[in-house]
Formats: sequence, C-alpha cells, structure tokens
Amino acid sequence: MSTLCQPNVLFPQYKITQEQMIEHLENLHGDHPRMSLAKRMIQNTEVNSRHLVLPIDELSVHTGFTHRSIVYEREARAMSSAAARQAISNANLKPSDIRMVIVTSCTGFMMPSLTAHLINDLELPASTVQLPIAQLGCVAGAAAINRAHDFASLNNRNHVLIVSLEFSSLCYQPDDTKLHAFISAALFGDAVSACVLRANDEAPGFNIKSTKSFFLPKSEHFIRYDVKDTGFHFTLDKAVMNSIKDVAPVMEKLNQDTYSQQCAENDFFIFHTGGRKILDELVNKLSLPADKVAPSRHSLSEAGNIASVVVFDVLRRRFESKPKTGSVGLLAAFGPGFTAEMAVGQWAA
Amino acid sequence: MSTLCQPNVLFPQYKITQEQMIEHLENLHGDHPRMSLAKRMIQNTEVNSRHLVLPIDELSVHTGFTHRSIVYEREARAMSSAAARQAISNANLKPSDIRMVIVTSCTGFMMPSLTAHLINDLELPASTVQLPIAQLGCVAGAAAINRAHDFASLNNRNHVLIVSLEFSSLCYQPDDTKLHAFISAALFGDAVSACVLRANDEAPGFNIKSTKSFFLPKSEHFIRYDVKDTGFHFTLDKAVMNSIKDVAPVMEKLNQDTYSQQCAENDFFIFHTGGRKILDELVNKLSLPADKVAPSRHSLSEAGNIASVVVFDVLRRRFESKPKTGSVGLLAAFGPGFTAEMAVGQWAA
Repeated sequence: MSTLCQPNVLFPQYKITQEQMIEHLENLHGDHPRMSLAKRMIQNTEVNSRHLVLPIDELSVHTGFTHRSIVYEREARAMSSAAARQAISNANLKPSDIRMVIVTSCTGFMMPSLTAHLINDLELPASTVQLPIAQLGCVAGAAAINRAHDFASLNNRNHVLIVSLEFSSLCYQPDDTKLHAFISAALFGDAVSACVLRANDEAPGFNIKSTKSFFLPKSEHFIRYDVKDTGFHFTLDKAVMNSIKDVAPVMEKLNQDTYSQQCAENDFFIFHTGGRKILDELVNKLSLPADKVAPSRHSLSEAGNIASVVVFDVLRRRFESKPKTGSVGLLAAFGPGFTAEMAVGQWAA
Repeated sequence: MSTLCQPNVLFPQYKITQEQMIEHLENLHGDHPRMSLAKRMIQNTEVNSRHLVLPIDELSVHTGFTHRSIVYEREARAMSSAAARQAISNANLKPSDIRMVIVTSCTGFMMPSLTAHLINDLELPASTVQLPIAQLGCVAGAAAINRAHDFASLNNRNHVLIVSLEFSSLCYQPDDTKLHAFISAALFGDAVSACVLRANDEAPGFNIKSTKSFFLPKSEHFIRYDVKDTGFHFTLDKAVMNSIKDVAPVMEKLNQDTYSQQCAENDFFIFHTGGRKILDELVNKLSLPADKVAPSRHSLSEAGNIASVVVFDVLRRRFESKPKTGSVGLLAAFGPGFTAEMAVGQWAA
C-alpha cells in the first residue's frame, strides 16, 4: 500500500491571458495566412491563462539554447527546493526519511540532474536513489507515481519524493509558423510540483492499489520533439486525438480487475489535461458524468497544459474537495510514445 | 533473485587510434600553449583506440546540434534493435516476455525515447513499462541494473531489457580548447549494449543479491554538462579523482553486509572505467590485487570510456572468462552527482 500525499504546486511569477497571447501572436505573425484559423483554435483550447517563467516580451525573441538553459537551471534550482520542502512536510516526514527522489522535466536539460541539487539542498540521505526522467513528456508525472509505487512496494519505509518541473515557455519557438506551433505556444504552461509518495498509509491521500502502463504501437509521430540548435521543438500530430479509444479499454480493465466496477462508477478521476478534446474523449469513451473531470478542466483553464505537473495540480484540487475515505479513483496521464500510465486506488482522509 | 544475462555489445564502424587522435588535435590546435601537456596526459589515459559513429574528419567540423541530433537518432534506431534482439535471445527469452525496457543514453536526446522505438521494432508487449534515463551519465548503466533489479524483485516474471547507447563523439566540441576538453575528446568512445535482467535464476549470469546507491554531497561540479546551442559540453573537475576514497567504504559495507567478507576477498569485479586513475584508486582504496580489474582496463584500452555502456562491456568480458558458479562479484559505476551505484552477487554458470 502506498499513499500519494498532498502535493505542493508552485507557479512562476509571470502570467499571460489567452487574449494577450493571441494579441502577441497577431503582432508577430499578423500576415500569416492561417492566423484567423489559429486564433479560433486557440480560443477553443479553453485555456484562459498561463504562468510563465519570463515575461512574454522576453520570450518572443529567442535568446538561444545556451541562454535558455541557464535560465532553466536558475529557475529550476530556485523553485524545486521550496516546493519539495513543503511536500515533505505535507507527508509528515523529514528529509532524512526520503529514500528515492524522482525528477520529471522535459522542457530543459541538466546533468547532473536536479535530483543531485535536491539531495544537496534538502540534505536527503547519501543513499537516496536518484531517478531523473526527461523523455516521457506529459506522461512523466504519472510514470513517476507508478515507479514510486513499485519502489514503495519493496519496503514500507521506501518513501519517494517526486518533483515535476516544466518551463514549457523556454521551448517556445517564435519562428515556428506551422499551425500546431501556434496552438502549442498558447496551450502549454509553466509550473513546478512536489509530492511525496509514502510507502504506507499513515497519511491522508490517494492510496494506490494497482497500476498499469500502456503503449500504442506505431504512434511515435503523435507527440515528438525535434532537437535543434534552438532547443526542443514540439510537434503534434492530430491523430493523437483518436488515441483515447485505444487506451480506454485498458483503463476499464484495470478498474474492473481491481474494484470489479466500471470507470463510470468511480468517485473521482485525476486526469492529465492533454487539451479540451482529450478530456472530451475521456468523458465520451468511459461514459463519465461530465462534471467528474471538472478538476482537470479547471487546471487546464487556469494554468494551461503543464505537462508532467498536471496530475499533481489535479491531485491538489482533489485534496481541496475533501473526498470521503474509501472513495475510488482513477489517475491517468498520456504522453509521447504514445504512452499512458494509470493507477487506481482509494482515498484515505 | 535476478540475473544479469549475457550482454550484447556493438561498436560503430569507424575507429581511431590514440596516435591518430593526438595528430588530429595537433593539426587543429597546434599553437595551443598547453598542447604538449595535453599530449602527455592523453598518452597517460591508457586508451589505445576508440570507435566512432562518424569519421573523425566529419566530427572535426561541428555541423550543429540540429544535424548531430539527426545522426544520433538515425544511428540509435539502427544499432539498438540489433543489439536488443541478440540480448533477449541470450537470456533464452522472447520479446513477448519483456515487461520493462530501460534505455540509458546521455549523449543525445530523443522524445519519444528510444524505448518507444524498441517496443515497436521488437514488438514488445503493449504493457511494457518504459524507463528512459538520460541524466545519470556514466553511472546510468549500473543505475539501470539496480532499478531493473528492484522491478524484478516485485514479480519473478518481471524481465527487463536494458539498452545503453552512447555516441560520445556527437558531443565532441572541436572549438573547446580547455585542457580537460582535449582529454575528454580523447577519452570517451561510442558503443551500444543490450542486456536482459531476468527476474529469476533460470539462465547463466550474474545473480544480484543486493544493491546500493551513494551520493557525495556538494559535488555537482565534479562532472557536468553545459547545455548550449552546439549541444552538450562535458566538463570535468579533477577533484573527482578524490571521490573513490569516499565511496570505497560504502562498497565495503555492502559487500560485508551481504557476504560477510571484504571486497578484496571477492572473486571478480565489474567496474566502470572512469579512467586509469579511477581504476588505480579502486585498486588502492579497496586493497585489490591489480589483476582483478583487468577486464575494466582492457575495455578502457580498446574502446575508451564508453559511459553507461562500460559495465556491460566488462560484464561481457566476464562471461568470456567463464567464472565458477558461486564466485562472488561486485559491480560498480560512478557518474555525475557525484553518484555511485553498486551491486553484489554471485555467478551462476
């Protein structure tokens, strides 16, 4: 039995509304033949605002991968420690109780990883296992949870600190003028989360019962990076929107095998917000009451798609709604591969 | 009980001797004030030859991170599948038996990770757990082994495929003229390995009994990347040479706790080859007979420091020397952080 404790989610100081973002793109690419289509599509994302690590004016002139990597490391060091200290406290633990630290981040690259910084800054034990995950994109948060659950299953003192950190704005490529690049530039947001998975049930939270990984064959082109002199360039194939029909039966089976009930009978859902359409598809293919995915819609609206941080932001909202002990929930996220990671469990208040 | 089965190690087609590399550097930087010191230091590395994914003449003009990333992905796809098929066969398994795929590589970046390519190309199960590790550098191979051992400890059918792939030559920065950059350019080599960790003892190999992670506080500057428009720039602080004295007692304790004997009493060692001095320090601080680290010295001499692939190349040599069943061994690697991962176990013929 492992428990996802109350996460701590931090947002960087700059904020941009979707109206401001559209205005920004129109100023940059006003003569682009598909700008009015892009504008309509961005309005359809249901993202109202996003947080950014730098002001949009600074991001609109690409300062180079060298400079962006310096900004990434500076902000990552500053924000991750603060987030982590609070998360360890939320779990009623001390830094010396942590046995593994996982960092997920696909929007910058550091070696040593931020795991080393966290061990130093928080004074975690010298025997702490480090697991930095950079290449699982939006599914990395749920993948970290599932790997932490595996590690916790080995020993009831194997508590895991998970820090997820995404500065998607540092992957904003103002010179990319394909339609999907405009949408991405208005969809992804910046955020940092920290969360402890306790290797027992001695704190309130989401008790994980079982987990599952899923890979959709021949879908590597759905979500990918081109790695260039200017950094990571995100590309998306709209075929990804049809992938939920393939993963929904896997979610149903996991739910059925664990609790002998259909997903629609669950009390709550902690879903990644790939975007509005992905959430619509989940509601549709799992036959869910629409309000059950409201926390994911609120996260999307207020912060954009914050990649590997999303599941923790939705979990945070779940804590605020104070679910009843014993209520059944399903956590799931999706990302490049195409890959899904999911976990089912029960709430313990 | 888990078993590291016979690995498969592949080298790219181009080869350069150390004499050719020195000649190359002298041609590029003949007027550098420290070139004769660099030459002596390179001769002291005891690296005789290395394999490269491109001819040295092509590498000597930096074609940009965009182009190098394309080469990285092309070669990674081509070489990893071939290596993996043979490794699965070595373990007397079929692709459908694999439950987790780990890819370690710090010398290029892909998203989706090569884990996705391997699931597609080898037709691994859709439920395969993916664990790409990019930020643990030279320690990643041993870290992968230890995480695979953890996963295998959960279920005796949790067989893990580990593919390690390093094209260090694609991080060669011909314009870096610091002394340590010259040494790095002549130290690191290219290689690909694949190895299966079986979740039981039904194949010959290295039975892992227990594992340990170690982090040396305040040592993030020992081994690090600067991430620039031109890709990853490796930097090394010579203070790293003094780190073995701190990790040796941890290795001794793991060995003592598991087999009630000192490391010097072990039958064999599977050591990462950070370089000649690191091996000298291991021999010295663990009071080992010098010939016990010969397979690591041979790997260094014939292939250079092949980063996360090293432990698998040394394991391959161990298989060739046909150890006796029951002989006790210690596997250890070191990398950025400063981080060490180690495992002790016994040979099963």
